[in-house]
Amino acid sequence: MSARILIVDDTPSSVKMLAAKLTNEYYQVLTAGDGQAALEAVDRDAPDLVLLDVMMPGLDGFEVCRRIKENPKNTHIPVVMVTALGNSEDRVKGLEAGADDFLTKPVEDTTLFARIRSLVRLKHMLEQWRLRGATSEKLGFVTEGINVLDRGTAADIILVDDSTVQKKKIIKSLGADNDRVTVIDDYEASGRVADIGGDVVVISLNSDSDAPLRMASRLRSLDLTRQVPILLIGDAEDQALFIKALELGVNDYIMRPLDEQELIARVRTQVRRKRYQDRLHEDFLQHLSMALTDSLTGLHNRHYLSTHLDAVMDRMRESEKPVSLLMIDADHFKQINDSYGHSVGDEVLYEIGQRILRNIRGFDLAARYGGEEFTVVMPDTPIEVALGVADRLCEKMANEPISVSGSKHKIVVTLSIGVSVSRGGDETAENLLKQADDAMYQAKKGGRNQVIPKPPKSAKTAVEALPG
Amino acid sequence: MSARILIVDDTPSSVKMLAAKLTNEYYQVLTAGDGQAALEAVDRDAPDLVLLDVMMPGLDGFEVCRRIKENPKNTHIPVVMVTALGNSEDRVKGLEAGADDFLTKPVEDTTLFARIRSLVRLKHMLEQWRLRGATSEKLGFVTEGINVLDRGTAADIILVDDSTVQKKKIIKSLGADNDRVTVIDDYEASGRVADIGGDVVVISLNSDSDAPLRMASRLRSLDLTRQVPILLIGDAEDQALFIKALELGVNDYIMRPLDEQELIARVRTQVRRKRYQDRLHEDFLQHLSMALTDSLTGLHNRHYLSTHLDAVMDRMRESEKPVSLLMIDADHFKQINDSYGHSVGDEVLYEIGQRILRNIRGFDLAARYGGEEFTVVMPDTPIEVALGVADRLCEKMANEPISVSGSKHKIVVTLSIGVSVSRGGDETAENLLKQADDAMYQAKKGGRNQVIPKPPKSAKTAVEALPG
Repeated sequence: MSARILIVDDTPSSVKMLAAKLTNEYYQVLTAGDGQAALEAVDRDAPDLVLLDVMMPGLDGFEVCRRIKENPKNTHIPVVMVTALGNSEDRVKGLEAGADDFLTKPVEDTTLFARIRSLVRLKHMLEQWRLRGATSEKLGFVTEGINVLDRGTAADIILVDDSTVQKKKIIKSLGADNDRVTVIDDYEASGRVADIGGDVVVISLNSDSDAPLRMASRLRSLDLTRQVPILLIGDAEDQALFIKALELGVNDYIMRPLDEQELIARVRTQVRRKRYQDRLHEDFLQHLSMALTDSLTGLHNRHYLSTHLDAVMDRMRESEKPVSLLMIDADHFKQINDSYGHSVGDEVLYEIGQRILRNIRGFDLAARYGGEEFTVVMPDTPIEVALGVADRLCEKMANEPISVSGSKHKIVVTLSIGVSVSRGGDETAENLLKQADDAMYQAKKGGRNQVIPKPPKSAKTAVEALPG
Repeated sequence: MSARILIVDDTPSSVKMLAAKLTNEYYQVLTAGDGQAALEAVDRDAPDLVLLDVMMPGLDGFEVCRRIKENPKNTHIPVVMVTALGNSEDRVKGLEAGADDFLTKPVEDTTLFARIRSLVRLKHMLEQWRLRGATSEKLGFVTEGINVLDRGTAADIILVDDSTVQKKKIIKSLGADNDRVTVIDDYEASGRVADIGGDVVVISLNSDSDAPLRMASRLRSLDLTRQVPILLIGDAEDQALFIKALELGVNDYIMRPLDEQELIARVRTQVRRKRYQDRLHEDFLQHLSMALTDSLTGLHNRHYLSTHLDAVMDRMRESEKPVSLLMIDADHFKQINDSYGHSVGDEVLYEIGQRILRNIRGFDLAARYGGEEFTVVMPDTPIEVALGVADRLCEKMANEPISVSGSKHKIVVTLSIGVSVSRGGDETAENLLKQADDAMYQAKKGGRNQVIPKPPKSAKTAVEALPG
């Protein structure tokens, strides 16, 4: 994919050379001559990747990287640090500043382009998630800023390695930094990776076969492991394999002899990235589920009820099974609000919701219908059973007053419940709701704190035979 | 990226050869020997791409492709048809069956791999969206099946071409099939593409410069055009450029001499894909916005109110401006529900919501607070102005009874409104709501159908000076 790349370097000739290379590969190139200009360019132009020189007067590369990554708006922009120095201490320092990778000058073209492609691909994917986040915000969701300075420690690592000696060393290095290091010594066992579900998979290229790379490829092809970061460990002569691996979707690699600190730092980088992505995903899930949940009681909302009641009735119609429905209204609820105030009223509604949930079965569907009204849909349930549930709920509610905060005495709440049952055939959701609603109003008129069924003709005998 | 590729061919030697090539590139390979087996494999294994032979006994490739694409679960899986025949009629037939591309045997490796990479990348991106869709469904959203058999016509095409002759021909071909063909004759004008915002961009490689490819690259680097399909038109000797273009994110290409039907078919394929993606996006937006909207009235819901009131107050505090808040409750609403039934009650609530919206300003925020209670947040508004709005609303409501369906006479609804204003400084949203709520209760006690302010001390004089 094409991308906008920001080159940051205080040596004009370096900038020029790199810019020419990238332009030749059809990348869009931006440049900055020092750290301050780099930060401004990142804010202004939102590049897809930053190639960042380490040694610069003023703000050095480490500091620039840290500032880019600290800003939640920019944290997903990959930063590759480029340095004339090849020592591991610098690499570790860069990675800990949040850099996604570290390359040594003179940068070899094939490696550079492979890295860029890999990081840009990842960035575009994150961008898709972030766009959704931005949309959420525009619509009015408030998301907490994601903690981008996660240390990337205390993770769950999977190590795939069949050499006894090296394995031990890696387990020791990564074990100190992480919660768990699980070892798999069979390169065919991609399924186990999915089962274990770690934060990062480290794969050693230590046999002559291409099994390690095939495993990486398989992990990328399986839905369950497609997004898990993969880090390869290999030798300098594996360079061609590394390039291939990046194309396949491997995220990073490190060369032997293993520098312990660098290994830890690279794993942390991947853990951070994974957590960032997970977090974007969780926000998304939370926002979606809000759309179907009543925020006060945590029950489903009316929208959910109306879309699902139809589906339940269709299913039950096919198997010729009855659907029962309870319409539940808290008696004299307005008085509670008037005497105790809204926040106590809310507490009472919450508690009613909880009690309803406790008294129904897992496959029943409870929703807040509105105000102080609740609905329970009971699939595959004859009206006798539904009446039993309603009676029990009604009784319990009357006998167990509700405690509320800021008040010593408990509030007695009673319920009026109407119960209906589908007649099968052409019964509609609307009618089922209406029948239960009518029955509930009869319960109100009849003095409240009671259950009234609205049985279909065919169910009449069964209902009359009920106790109470 | 690695991927699971399904090879469908009734000639075992063809399967074997292609499988070896793909395995060598670290793809996961699945195979099927006929159309029926192919459809089963697609359902069972959900491959990332299908390479589909056209000529097979039983179900031929066209029919297999059609069936894959007809199924909403599989429609996003790219299908590349492979045939021994090179005629354009077949290509068009394949594209119209929903194929994403059409290759002629013997397939040249570089082209094949470039196509696969490009289609797999797109598929992974769509997969991200689809996953969200699947999550939505699991959470309980009901999405209409996306119409995958969209013809891909009546689109908005942008043609970038600086040759007078060819341009005319293309405009004629595509113009017959589409709503609009806009021509840009300047390869530097990527910005105009974003401004016009078409469904597909067709770029002709017809100058000796690399300007066309640079334009494609630039379109892929800009947020606004990153997702728009790009189709290149070039000559057979541009093969290397085509491969490069696919890597850059161009979606398809077609070679001169232009076959009119093939051009139309390829453009349709891209339009279909674009619409599919747009639809996934719209579903997402709709689901999200539901989370913040009261489904009955279309106003913001309480969740939205509570997150945004804080933000509004923070902003106003900084600029030392007052925030006024109305708490609006419909009088004796329970009686309406009791006398006319819930559905009439709902109509009345909807109408109250609409009247509130009509009587406030664009930057005021109206929400359904719950039941028959509504809230309006008025930033940068002194209480005198808020009282004016509340009085007008109260009066209009009392004087203009509400028409409801199924009843000739209209329903008179009155409102009790409490109005509060922030005192600045350490004022909290909670307190602002409470003050308005208290005032609203005073309005109720005072006989309903009236507005009561709860002014802060500092605003007292101003309020006392108000008429009425």
